[in-house]
Amino acid sequence: VIAVPAVYSVAWVGGTDGYVRLLDQTILPGEVCYRDCRTLDDMREAICMLRVRGAPAIGVAAAMALVLHTQQAVRCGDLSESTFQRAADWLTAARPTAVNLAWAVRRMTGVFSRWNASRAGDPVRVLLDEALAIREEDAQMCRAIGRHGAGLFADGQGILTHCNTGGLATAEYGTALAAIFTAAEQGKRLHVYADETRPLLQGARLTSWELQQAGIDVTVICDGMAAQVMKEGRVQGVIVGADRIAANGDTANKIGTYGVAVLARAHGIPFHVAAPSSTFDLNLPSGDGIPIEQRDPREITHGFGRQTVPEGVRVYNPAFDVTPADLIASIVTEKGLIRPVSETNVRATLGGPP
Amino acid sequence: VIAVPAVYSVAWVGGTDGYVRLLDQTILPGEVCYRDCRTLDDMREAICMLRVRGAPAIGVAAAMALVLHTQQAVRCGDLSESTFQRAADWLTAARPTAVNLAWAVRRMTGVFSRWNASRAGDPVRVLLDEALAIREEDAQMCRAIGRHGAGLFADGQGILTHCNTGGLATAEYGTALAAIFTAAEQGKRLHVYADETRPLLQGARLTSWELQQAGIDVTVICDGMAAQVMKEGRVQGVIVGADRIAANGDTANKIGTYGVAVLARAHGIPFHVAAPSSTFDLNLPSGDGIPIEQRDPREITHGFGRQTVPEGVRVYNPAFDVTPADLIASIVTEKGLIRPVSETNVRATLGGPP
Repeated sequence: VIAVPAVYSVAWVGGTDGYVRLLDQTILPGEVCYRDCRTLDDMREAICMLRVRGAPAIGVAAAMALVLHTQQAVRCGDLSESTFQRAADWLTAARPTAVNLAWAVRRMTGVFSRWNASRAGDPVRVLLDEALAIREEDAQMCRAIGRHGAGLFADGQGILTHCNTGGLATAEYGTALAAIFTAAEQGKRLHVYADETRPLLQGARLTSWELQQAGIDVTVICDGMAAQVMKEGRVQGVIVGADRIAANGDTANKIGTYGVAVLARAHGIPFHVAAPSSTFDLNLPSGDGIPIEQRDPREITHGFGRQTVPEGVRVYNPAFDVTPADLIASIVTEKGLIRPVSETNVRATLGGPP
Repeated sequence: VIAVPAVYSVAWVGGTDGYVRLLDQTILPGEVCYRDCRTLDDMREAICMLRVRGAPAIGVAAAMALVLHTQQAVRCGDLSESTFQRAADWLTAARPTAVNLAWAVRRMTGVFSRWNASRAGDPVRVLLDEALAIREEDAQMCRAIGRHGAGLFADGQGILTHCNTGGLATAEYGTALAAIFTAAEQGKRLHVYADETRPLLQGARLTSWELQQAGIDVTVICDGMAAQVMKEGRVQGVIVGADRIAANGDTANKIGTYGVAVLARAHGIPFHVAAPSSTFDLNLPSGDGIPIEQRDPREITHGFGRQTVPEGVRVYNPAFDVTPADLIASIVTEKGLIRPVSETNVRATLGGPP
């Protein structure tokens, strides 16, 4: 069991008979409420409903979900390759765009298969150790992303971000926000503009909350205000996270990101992406192959307890969009900066030493 | 008293002892509720709170507000140039960006001054006739804008719009939506994408409602989705309204419009503005001189009845932005199309026959 920070997205409580505790991000910042999940079903519901969210955090949650599955399989005497694979597939389908989910599930499936070949030792222990390793690696990757990304920003700059990419989106510390946190730790005074990020307002609810807690100057704007904030010269850089990055650098991220990238280009402002190497899907030559999750229309029509779109009116609710590599100034990974963004540089950086 | 349509933004009920009835647009589409206003104070509150909104509708409302003021001044024996001017100034300050408000107030002030010079006849009657004339002219202008603008769209096209520019924003029929309504009346099948338009969701609540009632195909999207909808080839044109247009064609409109214009340019999609000639402020050489109203932070932080931004976090809430003329393919007025948009063409079109 590793120590967990005061506020965390997802953690394992106890030993092999333990369970998952996660912060319910759907009700932040109004309530800081942790939920304990003891089954795969609980975890899948939490992932689907975005109680836990952010590509890296979803990867950690998925790994822990498969530990819970294994606990139950042991209890029921149903411990088999095919049962594990069914659980893994069902979990993977919960969020089709984020590659970290599939990545973590594959890693856990490999560990289970190796255990299953010998059946030596406690399978829950083996899988729990792997899940905790994924969590710890993610925390370390976020620190490294912070170190590599902090140099992108200068003292006194305004930085715009979209959605939430802080500690809540990862095991700890964050991806895009890690670069901002680290720059702040280095003494740079930054002013962050946080897009509220409709429909689910992760920027308004989560990013502003994390920055406020870290003592970093933050202003929330509606998504439609980003262009004006850029035009007024308030922003000198943009940094966002990623849910999946193709081999050429095309980046899927929260809906609205692509528009911000186009606006940044039009205003001559560099647009950066920050993500751990587990976010890359090198099997995809470009972003065209990234599946885009369509979500419940009620996220738009009934976002805050009040109906805001008339009954019977259609809505379109893609959860992600794809920003072409040529709009991205640099991609910050735990292995360093990819800059300029090209398939050659992607492969060179990811293939390099950790 | 003129006949009013089934649903209308603002109307005068009765004769010189009558009052204003306006549709409270802050609670649409949940409730269709009319409010009766009998004083200048009632009207100013309604304008400030956006119960009545849309530059042309605000102009009509302001004219009627000054009739209510005159009724009261007659009752109180306080009918003077200086009292009228104070009322006019107080009303004008309610929404600094929309020029139609100041325009209507100036027109009513001129009528009052002429009446005051002779003091012949009933001042309430004189001012009411002028207010009703403004309303009727606005309705006629909207029909003409519809006729001139309908040709911008071809059968089967997708059209994106921002905020609300329909009958609710005017005396009747609308400006940008008038072009869509007229094209639909001509048998063109259009599909409209309506930006929900944060913070106050006029697109989600009002535009979609008006289009639905007119039987026009409409899909609501979050503001951050406009770029993706353009990239997917779903949109072949954009049309929006305006709150003030400078002599060179620079256009102030609802916050978010400028970003849409930049995105349309990046995707090779023509971006049009529709507005009556009363929206032009030919004293302003460019958009740099247009004052931008800053609105209550609570519109962003408490927009949906639930607090969505943590206590103590700052927000930035400009109500409008300015789109430079060079991003605008054409401006549709009741006097015809201004195309390409330049000061010469603006002055030529506005100076032409009505």
